[in-house]
Amino acid sequence: MRQEPDNTLVELKQYRESIDNLDAALVYLLAERFKVTKRVGYFKSKNELPPADKAREEKQIQRLRTLARSAQLDPDFTEKLLGFITREVINHHERARR
Amino acid sequence: MRQEPDNTLVELKQYRESIDNLDAALVYLLAERFKVTKRVGYFKSKNELPPADKAREEKQIQRLRTLARSAQLDPDFTEKLLGFITREVINHHERARR
Repeated sequence: MRQEPDNTLVELKQYRESIDNLDAALVYLLAERFKVTKRVGYFKSKNELPPADKAREEKQIQRLRTLARSAQLDPDFTEKLLGFITREVINHHERARR
Repeated sequence: MRQEPDNTLVELKQYRESIDNLDAALVYLLAERFKVTKRVGYFKSKNELPPADKAREEKQIQRLRTLARSAQLDPDFTEKLLGFITREVINHHERARR
């Protein structure tokens, strides 16, 4: 180690506090996003629309890849993450139909 | 369909505008999170600390599950999502070491 253990711990602790703050913000934003997609699910079910919409998903992917690039975030990772969230949303929609 | 197609489109469009706003916020927050984890990666590499830290991850998981519950978000989904992001972070750290 090139630094004193105490300084190392302090610096790492500060980074982790920032990560924890950002994670809390992410959780609350995601919760809000699921509130909206839940409404979409209910709406689609009521109007007999299919849970998935490929054209909409393709638009979302391209938009998020552009946003990711402007934020210096890896567009492939961002696309994979959206896919992960979307699959959860579709599971919710399918459960709501049963 | 129980509604007029036009009203259906308007309502769905409004939900999707909210989802798009929330997604943009998520992308920018994630970009900020990766800026911090990149600094952590550099810091760990410099101080010869291992990329993964199981004790820290376990604490993060429990904290996020608690936050998820308070936000009415599925704790299992939140834990899986954190795992997805953490794996990407560890990939970054490992690439930074090469």
